Amino acid sequence: MHYELYYWPSIQGRGEFVRLALEDTGAAYDDVARLKAGVPALTRFLQGGPGAYPPFAPPFLKAGKLVIAQTANILQWLAPRHGLVPKAESARIWAHQLQLTISDWLVEVHDTHHPMGGAFYYEDQKPESRRRAAHFTAERLPKFLGYFERLLANGYLLGRTFSYVDLSLFQVLAGLRYAFPRAMERLAPKHPRSVALHDRVASRPRVAAYLASPRRIAFNQHGIFRHYPELDA
Amino acid sequence: MHYELYYWPSIQGRGEFVRLALEDTGAAYDDVARLKAGVPALTRFLQGGPGAYPPFAPPFLKAGKLVIAQTANILQWLAPRHGLVPKAESARIWAHQLQLTISDWLVEVHDTHHPMGGAFYYEDQKPESRRRAAHFTAERLPKFLGYFERLLANGYLLGRTFSYVDLSLFQVLAGLRYAFPRAMERLAPKHPRSVALHDRVASRPRVAAYLASPRRIAFNQHGIFRHYPELDA
Repeated sequence: MHYELYYWPSIQGRGEFVRLALEDTGAAYDDVARLKAGVPALTRFLQGGPGAYPPFAPPFLKAGKLVIAQTANILQWLAPRHGLVPKAESARIWAHQLQLTISDWLVEVHDTHHPMGGAFYYEDQKPESRRRAAHFTAERLPKFLGYFERLLANGYLLGRTFSYVDLSLFQVLAGLRYAFPRAMERLAPKHPRSVALHDRVASRPRVAAYLASPRRIAFNQHGIFRHYPELDA
Repeated sequence: MHYELYYWPSIQGRGEFVRLALEDTGAAYDDVARLKAGVPALTRFLQGGPGAYPPFAPPFLKAGKLVIAQTANILQWLAPRHGLVPKAESARIWAHQLQLTISDWLVEVHDTHHPMGGAFYYEDQKPESRRRAAHFTAERLPKFLGYFERLLANGYLLGRTFSYVDLSLFQVLAGLRYAFPRAMERLAPKHPRSVALHDRVASRPRVAAYLASPRRIAFNQHGIFRHYPELDA
C-alpha cells in the first residue's frame, strides 16, 4: 500500500516517529505537506473536509480509505502490517503502553521551552522556561531515562525483538542529545543500554540511509527538541 | 473476569475514565488502592515488583495475568470485551484516536494550574497559572469543545452508537464545569450537543448509580480539574 503522511513540513515533531517507522520498513509513502501544495491539502483535513474522521491535529496517515491520527494510534496500526511488533496481544499492548509513555515524555520536553503554552513565543516565557527546565533535567529526565534503561536489559524494549518503540526511543534520545547536550552527557554513564540502543537503531541500514538523506529534517528551534543553552544546566 | 484497578485513592484523575467504563458495564472490580494496604500494593508495581511489564505511572488495570497501563490503552483493551465499542476496525481506531485527543486535552487542563510542572504547589505558580489559564479558556477550551461538538451530530461521538469515548467526554465536561463554571456557562449555548451528551451519559442507570454512590470521589483541589475562581475569567 502507498501511504500518505500529513505533517508540518519544516519540523521533525511528532510526525518523525511515523516517518522513522515508514523508513525503517521501506514502505512507500508521500510526505504530503513537503510536496507542492501539500500544506493546503493538510489543512483541508483539519477543517473537516474529506473523510468522516477529521483529525484534531497532525500527524495523520492516509492508508487507503482510512485516515488515522494521533502518533501512537498510527504506529499501533502500522506496526503489525510491517513486522514492527510481535503478533502476541500482550506484546502489542505493552508496546503501545510504552509508546504512550514516550508521548507523555515528549509533552514534558516541549513544556521546558513552552511552559506557558504554544500561544507565546519562547522569548516571552524565558524565566518560566528556565524554572521548568531546571526541574526537568534534574528530576524528570533521569526518571524517564531510568525507566527505559531498566527495560533494555535484553537489548530492545520488548526484549530480544526489535519493534517500532525502539525507533521512537531512538528519536527521543537523539532529540534530547540535541536539546540538552550537557545534561545528556552527564547522564550517559548511568544509561549505557540506552546509548547502545540509540547507536544500534541509528545503524540499521534503512534508518542510516534515511538519516543521511535530505528527507530527514534537521533538528531546529521550531520543533519539540530545541537547543537553548540556558535551559541545559 | 474480576479486575483490579490501581489508581490514587483520593482523586478522580485519570483513573476515573477507567472507573466509568467499569461501572457503566457493570464489571466486577476492586479499586485496589482504596482498600486496606492498597497504596503499598500500587507502589510495588511502580517499583517493578510483580510482572514483566512495570507501569510508569497509574492508572493500571490487572486483568488475569495482564497488567495494562496508560488510560487510553486500558480503555482500548477493555471496551471490546464489554460492548463499549463497535467491532469494526475503523470504528475502534477512531474511538482510540478520540480518546487520545481527550488525553491531550487533559494535559492542557492540568497545565492551567500547574504550568511550571508538578514539582511546585499551585500556590508557588499562581501568576503563571493565571496567564496560562487565560489562554486556555479563551482559545484552547473553545477549540476542543468545538471539535467534539461537531462530532456529536448524531448524538454520540461514534454516531448513533454509544461507546466508551462518550463516557470519557462526559467526564471531561463534568470536570470542566467544576473547574471553570463561568467559562463553561458562557460556552454552553454554542455547544448544545455536548450539553445533551453530558446529561444523557449521566442518566445511564449504572452511571447514575455510580455518581450517587460513595465510590465516586468528589472533585477536589488535588486532581486534574480544580476550581480556582481566579483562573475562571
